[in-house]
Amino acid sequence: MTIDYGTIAAGGAVVALLYSLFLFVTVRRQDPGNAKMVEIATAVKVGANAFLRREYTVIAPVTVIISVLIFVFIDIPLKTGGATAVGFLLGAVLSAMAGYVGMAATLRTSSRTAQAARKGLGPALSLAFKGGGVMGMAVVGFGLLGVSLFYLAYESVIVTTPAVIAGLGFGASLIAMFMRVSGGIYTKAADVGADLVGKAEVGIPEDDPRNPAVIADNVGDNVGDCAGMGADVYESFVVTSIAALILAALITGSALKDPTKFGSLTSLITSNQLLTYPLLLGASGIVGSILGGFYIRKSIKKGPMGALNIALIISAVIAIAIDAVITLNIFPGSELGYGFLASAAVGVVVVVVIEKVADYFTSYNYKPVKFIAEASQTGAATNFLAGFSTGLQSTAPSAVVLVLAIMVSYFIGYYASGENVLFGVYSTAVATMAELSLTGIIMSIDSFGPITDNANGIVEMAGLESGVREVTDELDAVGNTTKATTKAFAVMSAALAAVAIFFAFQSEVNNQIAGSASLLAKYGLLPGETLTFALSDPRVIVGLFIGSLLPFYFSSFLIQAVGRAAIKMVNEVRRQFKEIPGIMEGTAKPDYAKCVDISTTAALRELAKPALLAVATPLLVGFVLGPLALGGLLIGAVVTGVFLAFTMTNSGAAWDNAKKYIETGALGGKGTPTHAAAVMGDTVGDPFKDTAGPAINSLIKVLNTISIVFISAIVLYALFV
Amino acid sequence: MTIDYGTIAAGGAVVALLYSLFLFVTVRRQDPGNAKMVEIATAVKVGANAFLRREYTVIAPVTVIISVLIFVFIDIPLKTGGATAVGFLLGAVLSAMAGYVGMAATLRTSSRTAQAARKGLGPALSLAFKGGGVMGMAVVGFGLLGVSLFYLAYESVIVTTPAVIAGLGFGASLIAMFMRVSGGIYTKAADVGADLVGKAEVGIPEDDPRNPAVIADNVGDNVGDCAGMGADVYESFVVTSIAALILAALITGSALKDPTKFGSLTSLITSNQLLTYPLLLGASGIVGSILGGFYIRKSIKKGPMGALNIALIISAVIAIAIDAVITLNIFPGSELGYGFLASAAVGVVVVVVIEKVADYFTSYNYKPVKFIAEASQTGAATNFLAGFSTGLQSTAPSAVVLVLAIMVSYFIGYYASGENVLFGVYSTAVATMAELSLTGIIMSIDSFGPITDNANGIVEMAGLESGVREVTDELDAVGNTTKATTKAFAVMSAALAAVAIFFAFQSEVNNQIAGSASLLAKYGLLPGETLTFALSDPRVIVGLFIGSLLPFYFSSFLIQAVGRAAIKMVNEVRRQFKEIPGIMEGTAKPDYAKCVDISTTAALRELAKPALLAVATPLLVGFVLGPLALGGLLIGAVVTGVFLAFTMTNSGAAWDNAKKYIETGALGGKGTPTHAAAVMGDTVGDPFKDTAGPAINSLIKVLNTISIVFISAIVLYALFV
Repeated sequence: MTIDYGTIAAGGAVVALLYSLFLFVTVRRQDPGNAKMVEIATAVKVGANAFLRREYTVIAPVTVIISVLIFVFIDIPLKTGGATAVGFLLGAVLSAMAGYVGMAATLRTSSRTAQAARKGLGPALSLAFKGGGVMGMAVVGFGLLGVSLFYLAYESVIVTTPAVIAGLGFGASLIAMFMRVSGGIYTKAADVGADLVGKAEVGIPEDDPRNPAVIADNVGDNVGDCAGMGADVYESFVVTSIAALILAALITGSALKDPTKFGSLTSLITSNQLLTYPLLLGASGIVGSILGGFYIRKSIKKGPMGALNIALIISAVIAIAIDAVITLNIFPGSELGYGFLASAAVGVVVVVVIEKVADYFTSYNYKPVKFIAEASQTGAATNFLAGFSTGLQSTAPSAVVLVLAIMVSYFIGYYASGENVLFGVYSTAVATMAELSLTGIIMSIDSFGPITDNANGIVEMAGLESGVREVTDELDAVGNTTKATTKAFAVMSAALAAVAIFFAFQSEVNNQIAGSASLLAKYGLLPGETLTFALSDPRVIVGLFIGSLLPFYFSSFLIQAVGRAAIKMVNEVRRQFKEIPGIMEGTAKPDYAKCVDISTTAALRELAKPALLAVATPLLVGFVLGPLALGGLLIGAVVTGVFLAFTMTNSGAAWDNAKKYIETGALGGKGTPTHAAAVMGDTVGDPFKDTAGPAINSLIKVLNTISIVFISAIVLYALFV
Repeated sequence: MTIDYGTIAAGGAVVALLYSLFLFVTVRRQDPGNAKMVEIATAVKVGANAFLRREYTVIAPVTVIISVLIFVFIDIPLKTGGATAVGFLLGAVLSAMAGYVGMAATLRTSSRTAQAARKGLGPALSLAFKGGGVMGMAVVGFGLLGVSLFYLAYESVIVTTPAVIAGLGFGASLIAMFMRVSGGIYTKAADVGADLVGKAEVGIPEDDPRNPAVIADNVGDNVGDCAGMGADVYESFVVTSIAALILAALITGSALKDPTKFGSLTSLITSNQLLTYPLLLGASGIVGSILGGFYIRKSIKKGPMGALNIALIISAVIAIAIDAVITLNIFPGSELGYGFLASAAVGVVVVVVIEKVADYFTSYNYKPVKFIAEASQTGAATNFLAGFSTGLQSTAPSAVVLVLAIMVSYFIGYYASGENVLFGVYSTAVATMAELSLTGIIMSIDSFGPITDNANGIVEMAGLESGVREVTDELDAVGNTTKATTKAFAVMSAALAAVAIFFAFQSEVNNQIAGSASLLAKYGLLPGETLTFALSDPRVIVGLFIGSLLPFYFSSFLIQAVGRAAIKMVNEVRRQFKEIPGIMEGTAKPDYAKCVDISTTAALRELAKPALLAVATPLLVGFVLGPLALGGLLIGAVVTGVFLAFTMTNSGAAWDNAKKYIETGALGGKGTPTHAAAVMGDTVGDPFKDTAGPAINSLIKVLNTISIVFISAIVLYALFV
């Protein structure tokens, strides 16, 4: 019996999920701390679960309605046997699960990490990392499971109608966007509200139990940084995989139609190697991530960031080694094999490099964050300008990495295939897939951030001994940087995948037009001619402008939502301090539930506008201005979105760590006007780094996937073409 | 004797310059106020002139070196008789003059406006507007003079080698960028530094003579808002004109080569109508601007903003009427004539609409600014978030206007010419030229802003009676909005012109390649094939990414420069307050010169990096990655730059007016924590709206013009194509 590569990939997914379960059990066995700590952790858990339940209740009917629409308007006309709608539902459900499972793990790890911190940095780091691993492995496991199940179920449909694959990605990214946006608004409304009164006005420390918004703040860390981030990175993995799959299906489909087209490569293509190769790359990263993660148990000699870095590099090296075995087996003795292996290596190297870039711009060991801290000496305004300009500046090295990755991977595939453009783009998708294959370890490193953030809260609220706070504080600062890394990682994958997806989009448009005389006439083409997405066409330019607008406009909704909700929160917290006597003395308990409610309501109500913008704009542009403008929109959104996202996530993390740097005692330390200015900067950075910035990634992917799902209808019914 | 249309246009330019001179003389005749006021105005004048002299000393050798390089590497190989180098020098010198003359007028108007304000709002408004008119008319006069002189001198060269026209634009935009960047850094370093200590720490009002940075601040308003803005809008006019001219020359040149190509339109084209038409449109706006300006003298019944609005609308209506006469005379009885007239109307309407958009987002009569003011009640952080998100939000209506203007004007020209693409793009250039023809009135309305700002300073420093300050304060708030309008106006023109310029760029590239067998081989083309700037080409995508990066990275330099210089200024002001006894009591004079020196040094030193970025990147991308990537870069920079510029200029003006709104007594008025938070927001907005935001406009235009100037060498020597 021979085993299909698709089955191997699904097996890899199961391994990841089992390992996630194993880590979960390990974490649960640890000491959850004293009664006070358990009580706090339970309060946070109850709030977080309640929010997710309410959110899923809102999302579920929307998801069902969209899947019915897709079934009726896409699957029935295309005769796909419901593949798009099923993919959409599968992607959506797994997205919700990835978020939920990740959050379940971090909720249970934080009090245990606080407890472990009483024993020192090593045990705390190791436990937080394991808790992060539950989420990391679950995310990559669900991602790979969804893609490989879909592949196994619809292998034949995929080859004839590649666009069906996009349904899976659309489901994944739509739910991820919902969770990112609502989680982001929730967490930052609470965080900003808590900080503005607590730290800036009343002068009590972060996470002080006297602050009425403190439970809402901790719930927010879980629903935003954990559930939101989990769903987001899951969809990055899925969308990257489907970008590679769609390209592979396009190549395979056209080779089946015209076996002479690809010359000596034909046999390779028609036996589905190109389709399964990206899935196997994804699986290889899982093994690398598990093995690299072992390093964290042994030693923290180099400090937490150093240890995490080494774990990442070990994972990367192992992944490349496994990639080599896989690649040279699938494409034996061909230039293409060596080419793809080189592209995969490019993708892995990208991860390591962007990790360094994010570290440089957001860690207080380097100049940029120190510059922001120093700028705080002259007040909040100079702090703000320093932070924002640091974010703007961080776009340059990120752009260089991105541009090099695209060029190198494309030309490797192009020349290795004898100058075939499709293989060039596929090669870029291979690099992206190799990048995303490290999701497991990257997410483990990332989720470690919110876990220690929450642990920090529990240490403060439970009033643990002072040395403990120092341990969790140090880990928290590292967590800020690792969170920035993951966001850069997700955004970079969006940019790389967008190139592949745009190409798939263009091919789908032209395949459809070429097959119909009436469509050729509609688009003013002669048989054999294709629609070119040229910059000299005003529709393409207009599409580029509209696409470039979207990240700006989308961000404005999110930041305003946080601002509005934070103002409500501030007023509520101020009211409680004024009207409930004894809060400051610790003799009366604040009304935590009221603050939780403000965040919850705001998060769900403010979701509608940005979600509608993301879904309606591409459909409107497509159906009114046609596929040329829609193609421009897709590229416009990514070229702008990437840099706006980098600006916001990096400046946000840099502000946060500038504040933490001062809190280590630098420049006068806590209680100085310098520190107060830095707290202001941190507050402004909160919605940048945890709401608007990372949501741009989901926005780009929703735009990409929805456009491909609806492409056949758009080509058919577009008004002005 | 028949008079050439080019001569008529030059005549229009002379009229504008004479009218500017007339206004200048009128303004000088007014009462400059008491001895104290004259003393202050003189101190500011001396500082501003000293700065401009030092700046020109730095710029002059750079300009000469570049013109020699252009002569050797462009003009000699292309045998143009030095047209590009001469154009470059002409554009550069007129740019410097536009800045200088505008500043000379505002320097002389401010003390007189302060004096007029003692008589009431009407006289102050009328005088400030006249002072602004000196600059407005000078800017449009120099712009049209440069373009028409160049046209008259090189008419024949233009038709054979359209790229030579870009030399004029490159000279204009390079100097404008220098002046924008250095002026912007100067003014905001002083302003931020003065405000942070003066208002936020010591609690003295703006423009208080006890503040050591107050003279530097007032000098800054002149070198930034007047000299910088004058050079900037001048280059907008020039670059827009040359975009139209290049397109006209391309069409004319190809009609001369192949008279059958344009069918019945050929005779029209070959008699140079297309070349002179944009110049006449420019001249028509001058007449409209002069006549519309008369309205301001008569009445201010509707409040200053209302009066300025009516003046603008009168100018617009008159301009359209004259456009109608011109257009129907040049293109008699043809569909093309009606089409171009419609496009010109689109351009004029754009001005009126973006003026409304800027007004809505930046005036305190509407919701956005009130929202920012209310957000200040919960501190500086919520104020920052509200202001920034308002800026982001303002991009959407601006984008809609832009997209509609492009689509409508393009398709009018396309269909009116019998579906000719070149005429479609030319029609977009006609709309842009019609927009820019209103430069005279727009600049008059704008320069009114810095004049009243400075008048405000003189009122405060000279200790005039309290009612006067209220008059100048009201005018100052209106000035903030009108300044935002002009920036939107300039940015919108950059976006519209970029479409035309990209098309010219692409045509130049393909004309050059088509004429050479070795170039066809180099670019892998068969005879008859052309290079397509398609989104599916990785070089184009990479170019788009690099182009999109530029506005972000460029802005980071400018904001950091302001931040660094402001910190130095703050420390110096703090030092003087501490070390010079009696400053606060008014018994000792602060050391103004020291602060002037800090701004001057910073402005000139910090100029190098952003200028190098703007000049080196397109050359590097062009010569290394080839014309495809460079084309992508041009479009990438504009689609991102436009929205980043709108975000920054509108949020900056909105922050400023939110502060002014509170100062009218709203939400508790001056001296409250709400006001303090709003002052912080205003401080952050300063470099957004007066340094980085408007400089993006120059950046886009430098990228556009340098690329066309060097296109022949790039096509020839590009490494990887």
